[in-house]
Amino acid sequence: MTTALIHERLQSQLAFHTEIDKLKRVIRRNSLIDGSRRENDAEHSWHLAMMAMTLAEHAPPETDISRVVAMLLVHDIVEVDAGDTFIYDPVAVEGQAALERAAADRIFGLLPEDQGARLRGLWDEFEERRTPEARFARALDRLAPIIANHHNEGGTWPLYKVTARQVMEKVRLIEEGSPTLGEYAARLVAGSVAQGHLAP
Amino acid sequence: MTTALIHERLQSQLAFHTEIDKLKRVIRRNSLIDGSRRENDAEHSWHLAMMAMTLAEHAPPETDISRVVAMLLVHDIVEVDAGDTFIYDPVAVEGQAALERAAADRIFGLLPEDQGARLRGLWDEFEERRTPEARFARALDRLAPIIANHHNEGGTWPLYKVTARQVMEKVRLIEEGSPTLGEYAARLVAGSVAQGHLAP
Repeated sequence: MTTALIHERLQSQLAFHTEIDKLKRVIRRNSLIDGSRRENDAEHSWHLAMMAMTLAEHAPPETDISRVVAMLLVHDIVEVDAGDTFIYDPVAVEGQAALERAAADRIFGLLPEDQGARLRGLWDEFEERRTPEARFARALDRLAPIIANHHNEGGTWPLYKVTARQVMEKVRLIEEGSPTLGEYAARLVAGSVAQGHLAP
Repeated sequence: MTTALIHERLQSQLAFHTEIDKLKRVIRRNSLIDGSRRENDAEHSWHLAMMAMTLAEHAPPETDISRVVAMLLVHDIVEVDAGDTFIYDPVAVEGQAALERAAADRIFGLLPEDQGARLRGLWDEFEERRTPEARFARALDRLAPIIANHHNEGGTWPLYKVTARQVMEKVRLIEEGSPTLGEYAARLVAGSVAQGHLAP
């Protein structure tokens, strides 16, 4: 590679780096585990990547964990443009897909073409949920807010009048990625119902 | 593995997961790139992991980037106990090492032993800077605040009376990990001096 090309690529990579800093200002519905404030997308993505590293043994055998980590690091970047969607709001979820695809075109498009295509591919894989890696990544993304809500007297559940029946639909997505984690999540949900923090 | 052992390990893994959530409340000196607020360790770690993925071609050939990513994800976890150290404060830096080792013992010790040892190994590798992976990870950790300060009229540099001579010592650490990124950082430093945002 010529020096000029190296520098041109570096400029694109650093433009991407500056752009994705905005993910630190995209605020999710759920709180930190101590309830002190709401969580942002960047720190959430870090936490999920750490979960992938430490919960790897609960993924199906042969799962490529470094791809799961990479997928989780990029999975919310589109929200720089499209904003966070609350998964229990069906109207928001419907309109969101087109917004997110446009965001992926723009933001991954800041990178040199080969790299943009690779990261876009990871995001598409996460969204399509066809591989064991994507299903495991998605399971962690669904498990994390259940843990946070369980620690926060129900957190977003009572706030947005979410019921255990609705949460159990998400638990089934966790089971698809990891039966062990799905079973654990179902126990947390039952515990929250028993404690009166989640309506049946 | 028996079901009982799987559940015992899962309990330890989730205790670790809950504990490291506190990294989201450890506040660094430098700001987000838009200057709106100071950055926390968790979102900083996410951003560095993304840099590793996108700047990989500027690392020495054969560098194992997935290990760099893993190292960057864990590199600040000890600060849950030890707090953030400003790299231009020599007194703080000196006392910090023992505190951080004790923190590593405690926090990585929450995990099942094999996993705790693996993550502790990644942290030790980062600290010792003997491998190309550790030197590249360290280079990114030093580059990120230079970029943020360059975008923020000097950011922490004028605030803490840091000079270009001091920053150039950090740039040499960047060069050790990646000559291309070191050269880029030196240009940012020169630019900040020219703009009057960094004292020579």
